[in-house]
Amino acid sequence: MVGGGRGAFIGALHRIAAAMDGQIELVCGAFSSDPQRSKDSGADLFLPANRCYGTYEEMIRAEAKLPLGERMDFMCIVTPNFMHFPPAKMALENGFHVLSDKPATFSLDEAKKLAAIVKKSGLLYGLTHNYTGYPLVKEARAMVAAGKLGKIRKVVVEYPQGWLATRLEASDQKQAAWRTDPKRSGAAGCIGDIGTHAENLAEYITGLPISELAADLTAFVKGRKLDDDGNLLLRFKGGAKGVLHSSQISVGEENNLNIRVYGEKGGLEWHQNEPNTLLVKWLDQPTQIFRTGNGYLGKAAASATRTPPSHPEGYLEAFANVYRAFAGAVRARLDGKKLAKDDPANDYPKIEDGVRGMAFIEAVVKSSKANAAWTKLET
Amino acid sequence: MVGGGRGAFIGALHRIAAAMDGQIELVCGAFSSDPQRSKDSGADLFLPANRCYGTYEEMIRAEAKLPLGERMDFMCIVTPNFMHFPPAKMALENGFHVLSDKPATFSLDEAKKLAAIVKKSGLLYGLTHNYTGYPLVKEARAMVAAGKLGKIRKVVVEYPQGWLATRLEASDQKQAAWRTDPKRSGAAGCIGDIGTHAENLAEYITGLPISELAADLTAFVKGRKLDDDGNLLLRFKGGAKGVLHSSQISVGEENNLNIRVYGEKGGLEWHQNEPNTLLVKWLDQPTQIFRTGNGYLGKAAASATRTPPSHPEGYLEAFANVYRAFAGAVRARLDGKKLAKDDPANDYPKIEDGVRGMAFIEAVVKSSKANAAWTKLET
Amino acid sequence: MVGGGRGAFIGALHRIAAAMDGQIELVCGAFSSDPQRSKDSGADLFLPANRCYGTYEEMIRAEAKLPLGERMDFMCIVTPNFMHFPPAKMALENGFHVLSDKPATFSLDEAKKLAAIVKKSGLLYGLTHNYTGYPLVKEARAMVAAGKLGKIRKVVVEYPQGWLATRLEASDQKQAAWRTDPKRSGAAGCIGDIGTHAENLAEYITGLPISELAADLTAFVKGRKLDDDGNLLLRFKGGAKGVLHSSQISVGEENNLNIRVYGEKGGLEWHQNEPNTLLVKWLDQPTQIFRTGNGYLGKAAASATRTPPSHPEGYLEAFANVYRAFAGAVRARLDGKKLAKDDPANDYPKIEDGVRGMAFIEAVVKSSKANAAWTKLET
Amino acid sequence: MVGGGRGAFIGALHRIAAAMDGQIELVCGAFSSDPQRSKDSGADLFLPANRCYGTYEEMIRAEAKLPLGERMDFMCIVTPNFMHFPPAKMALENGFHVLSDKPATFSLDEAKKLAAIVKKSGLLYGLTHNYTGYPLVKEARAMVAAGKLGKIRKVVVEYPQGWLATRLEASDQKQAAWRTDPKRSGAAGCIGDIGTHAENLAEYITGLPISELAADLTAFVKGRKLDDDGNLLLRFKGGAKGVLHSSQISVGEENNLNIRVYGEKGGLEWHQNEPNTLLVKWLDQPTQIFRTGNGYLGKAAASATRTPPSHPEGYLEAFANVYRAFAGAVRARLDGKKLAKDDPANDYPKIEDGVRGMAFIEAVVKSSKANAAWTKLET
Repeated sequence: MVGGGRGAFIGALHRIAAAMDGQIELVCGAFSSDPQRSKDSGADLFLPANRCYGTYEEMIRAEAKLPLGERMDFMCIVTPNFMHFPPAKMALENGFHVLSDKPATFSLDEAKKLAAIVKKSGLLYGLTHNYTGYPLVKEARAMVAAGKLGKIRKVVVEYPQGWLATRLEASDQKQAAWRTDPKRSGAAGCIGDIGTHAENLAEYITGLPISELAADLTAFVKGRKLDDDGNLLLRFKGGAKGVLHSSQISVGEENNLNIRVYGEKGGLEWHQNEPNTLLVKWLDQPTQIFRTGNGYLGKAAASATRTPPSHPEGYLEAFANVYRAFAGAVRARLDGKKLAKDDPANDYPKIEDGVRGMAFIEAVVKSSKANAAWTKLET
Repeated sequence: MVGGGRGAFIGALHRIAAAMDGQIELVCGAFSSDPQRSKDSGADLFLPANRCYGTYEEMIRAEAKLPLGERMDFMCIVTPNFMHFPPAKMALENGFHVLSDKPATFSLDEAKKLAAIVKKSGLLYGLTHNYTGYPLVKEARAMVAAGKLGKIRKVVVEYPQGWLATRLEASDQKQAAWRTDPKRSGAAGCIGDIGTHAENLAEYITGLPISELAADLTAFVKGRKLDDDGNLLLRFKGGAKGVLHSSQISVGEENNLNIRVYGEKGGLEWHQNEPNTLLVKWLDQPTQIFRTGNGYLGKAAASATRTPPSHPEGYLEAFANVYRAFAGAVRARLDGKKLAKDDPANDYPKIEDGVRGMAFIEAVVKSSKANAAWTKLET
Repeated sequence: MVGGGRGAFIGALHRIAAAMDGQIELVCGAFSSDPQRSKDSGADLFLPANRCYGTYEEMIRAEAKLPLGERMDFMCIVTPNFMHFPPAKMALENGFHVLSDKPATFSLDEAKKLAAIVKKSGLLYGLTHNYTGYPLVKEARAMVAAGKLGKIRKVVVEYPQGWLATRLEASDQKQAAWRTDPKRSGAAGCIGDIGTHAENLAEYITGLPISELAADLTAFVKGRKLDDDGNLLLRFKGGAKGVLHSSQISVGEENNLNIRVYGEKGGLEWHQNEPNTLLVKWLDQPTQIFRTGNGYLGKAAASATRTPPSHPEGYLEAFANVYRAFAGAVRARLDGKKLAKDDPANDYPKIEDGVRGMAFIEAVVKSSKANAAWTKLET
Repeated sequence: MVGGGRGAFIGALHRIAAAMDGQIELVCGAFSSDPQRSKDSGADLFLPANRCYGTYEEMIRAEAKLPLGERMDFMCIVTPNFMHFPPAKMALENGFHVLSDKPATFSLDEAKKLAAIVKKSGLLYGLTHNYTGYPLVKEARAMVAAGKLGKIRKVVVEYPQGWLATRLEASDQKQAAWRTDPKRSGAAGCIGDIGTHAENLAEYITGLPISELAADLTAFVKGRKLDDDGNLLLRFKGGAKGVLHSSQISVGEENNLNIRVYGEKGGLEWHQNEPNTLLVKWLDQPTQIFRTGNGYLGKAAASATRTPPSHPEGYLEAFANVYRAFAGAVRARLDGKKLAKDDPANDYPKIEDGVRGMAFIEAVVKSSKANAAWTKLET
């Protein structure tokens, strides 16, 4: 693990997600850019001192010298955005599979370079777009793919939050500070941090790429350098239309990622804050309430569930589904097996998703600077 | 009443709304363009034969000859869109107050003419944008006006329906037929029929006019001549931003008009399909559930309610609130009284709202034809 | 109308409900036990002075002398409980149909007498157990009757309120005062006022009579003479079991009448505070959301609806459905027609429901006094 | 770990819960009554063969011989009900702390014996009544304890399920088979399996013991030997009243454990199937929606949360909270530290809760056999 030392937040969540299924064991880490802090953090986690490294470079070099079976099987990256590409690049170039926090990189240019490195290495690269790990998101995707909704016409996807409604970065809040800083966060604020989750979710469920978009970004809080709110018109390949909006100034909203998809024959509605419910809507028939854990769900949803019906699962289980799939892919690689295309272990976000996310961010920023002019999203 | 004869739908709802509070009595009507059908319809309603007219022209002329107290006090119009302006014009020019179904007219040009006629006549003109009659919509408006949310930053307003997801107009469905016909409906389909309700609701609650918009309209159903779906970016006077989308192809949606408003200090959320609940959101405090009929509500909401808490009120009561207010304004006029500005009888949609609605439709159509170019909404 | 003068509450709701469909016109009243107040109240309602009577006795006598077509067609009673029986008795004995607020009478003994009078008179008697007027309550009843749920096993019915959580009757609150006074309310407080609605709803939907019950009543507020909370175990004819609880001290609850019914094959759930939604539950299939106004509903629900889908209807419309049915039954009688058994005009609560309600109250009070001993509910 | 081998269900959930926080490592197990199956199951979990024992007796004896630090720190029991007491007894008598699945034992008599053994041993005993691990259940408890609701008057607690609505035990369903078998499940079916969770939740939140109850149990499914549905009236120490019902034949219900508590000043409502929401109700003020992860929550709720607001947590996290607390208590013991009374590590269900659970079951069965006679619940 790179990053995730004392005081960091997302690192702890990664560790819970990784440990959940007993398939992954944390064996080493470079938890902080401060070597002592890294060692202390590793000790908190019961790691032996010699596997707690001062820097990721040191870790990659040292681990590469260990025999297979002893050295780390893959490396995960949980640092701020600007520090995603360098360790990913070095790990891949030294023979390690990589699982990285999103976004894949700091810029589209970096993302394309990384894609080339992944391709050349022949190694596995995963991205923790964890919202696609929810069982009912998988069910939704499967229903669309099976044609149950008919041809898709409209998508409404939203990710409102309220936590940056005031100038929180002016206080000592670490999460707010780096996310609102162009040097550490990238070209976009809100739209990069959470808008990309909305984009990823929409494309994952519908299987349709966004072809062009018109974006109106705003920084509402005085003194803020990056957008804290964005409204987008979407056009998808094949003719579907849509709306995407995300916000960090929508007072009282938590992480209300949600999506509605309408086809010629049916519709879907899912809310991340009640993730165990999927509304399925029909022409001339009552809406149905799909719930996790029930026998009427498809294979993808079923294999993403650990508990019986109405024992609600949450964010950490969805997160763990990404880890479990990636671990399955790594194990298959170690065992020399080839995964079937629909194997659950194949169902994790990959470098292509990372490149699309960065292309999305750049298209949004470009469109907004051109007063919401239509801008192609090409990858 | 003009229109609303046998087989018509909205006319019956107008009559229920008008009768609800015992303040308004139906005394005459030209219920159909077919004189016999008009007379038969009047008989169904227990009206004397001599007050059931063959045409609205006949009615206005005949009623104008009756003495005050005997003749109709005001005329209401419940015909399809293209037949709103002519009877409104003639009634006003013959001394009758007018309450009209929305939209006010067939085109913006007509609406401006009508505004001039209203002004010249000195008479009252009301418009049944009935969704603003809901008690909690009034509470929302009052909270914004009192500054409880702080300066408004963002508005998300939606009106999805699904009933036109198939080509219903190809069958004999009367409601679908005229709404999808440019000659009877006007320049817009979905956005005129229900998008205007969303526009009106957003401006009513926030008190902020939309200054410009970018619109992407689509006719998804093959062979349909008018839009059945529209996605809009909004900019409000004073800097607020927003999204408006309405649809008649969102399978499984009924009349899910809903709105979210976010200010610097708080947020609001209201759904027409559960209209007795208003969510009020705060920085760092739990969201509150405001419910109709409770003592903590303000004057406007309280006076718009007829039943105790959690005896749910609905669409007809909201509709009746428009009628009751208009009747109060007419009575004050008959009594020679001047209403205080915040008198509930003053709280009904007026010709200015009608002009804005038509300006909205024209701006949306213009923007969409220009590939969603930003277009001013001026009135 | 008997009762419902100035300052009264329920009378106004009755008048709205009666007027809603244009089938019923208020022609006379004895609105108050104070003759002057009665006349003033009538004037408020635009009634001629000679039809505003000082007492109900005077009204019945005077109206009986008027020719048919001029005199009132039926009499409705909206007084407190102790004043239900006397006017009902006198009206029936003088040839008038009666529509009464619930409960039918002050005691079971009176109810049985009234049933005998109704029978002897051959006249119509209706009771405004208005919650059974909701369209989806009718749908629920129809589904059970059609066997869609299979044999019924369990019923959970609740009516919690919170408005009497403090000693409101000690202030000048008129509604609280008579409801907590044994002389005006009867043997029971909460269980009589709202528990009977729960009992009526459960029997209406399931078609199963409660055969015996065990009741634990409490008066939580110090100094209160009647129960303000009650918990009951139920046994139904045929073997179903159930729970009924109602309360007026459940802080924060409004009028949350709700019911769940489970059979061998399916289940139902309905809440009065969101009355346009009915959840229908199945073995091994997703729960369905039935909504008013949709084409998939049965005849009884459809005929009880006035507006299109998701134009929410509420308490007043449900109330009006009782009035409309009763007016239809009166009109059929006047026209000498016989109603088909499943005619919507036959679907209103009758004297048998009134007797059952009083039997329920007496059984509950008896059981509670015997420390919740099982007590038969016989009628 | 005792139990939880291949094919078992609850064992896997225990392991996830135990592993979640990186504080507990599985070191040995007797996973099955079949020694080979036990070894195979251990191998699946990457355990060394010499720590996979054929029986719990063998495991306890062998582990007891290992030095501290190497041997297991505590033993957890995840077998069917009849197999809870014997391993717990032996482990305690050999110096091991015990964490057991609920119910504590097969009978009240056994439970009292176990309590004596725990007391004598001076060791720690925990019980995975995991629903009390939810953050908002802890918030509810804290609010009651702080007097925010005033004196408690009424409790409504429910646990309906539908999965045993048909005779599932007649098929090969392992979970259904032992739960409906008196020899393996005990004196009660539904009321023991899930009714005890409702009892435990009500007492945990209110801090009030149930003093007496009247119970009506039913076995609705033909041929079933134990109750599959139960309705109870409750009386709490201090005068509060309540209703408890649980069911396994409520078609369409999943694990809808839920509770409402009303005091003199406020009320609470919580549903296990949406566990991140707690409704808080007030006299004359709008209901508030408390959500996990927010800053306005108290210490107990905050320390039971791993993710930011609206990253929903679920059943496994609640379960893990019990494990984390117990691990904290064990560590404090190993470290020779004494925990403060309000230390989160003290907040797990103990043997006293186990004894109460068994006393509840026996009182319910006794009452039901006496036709729902009031029966004391004493421990």
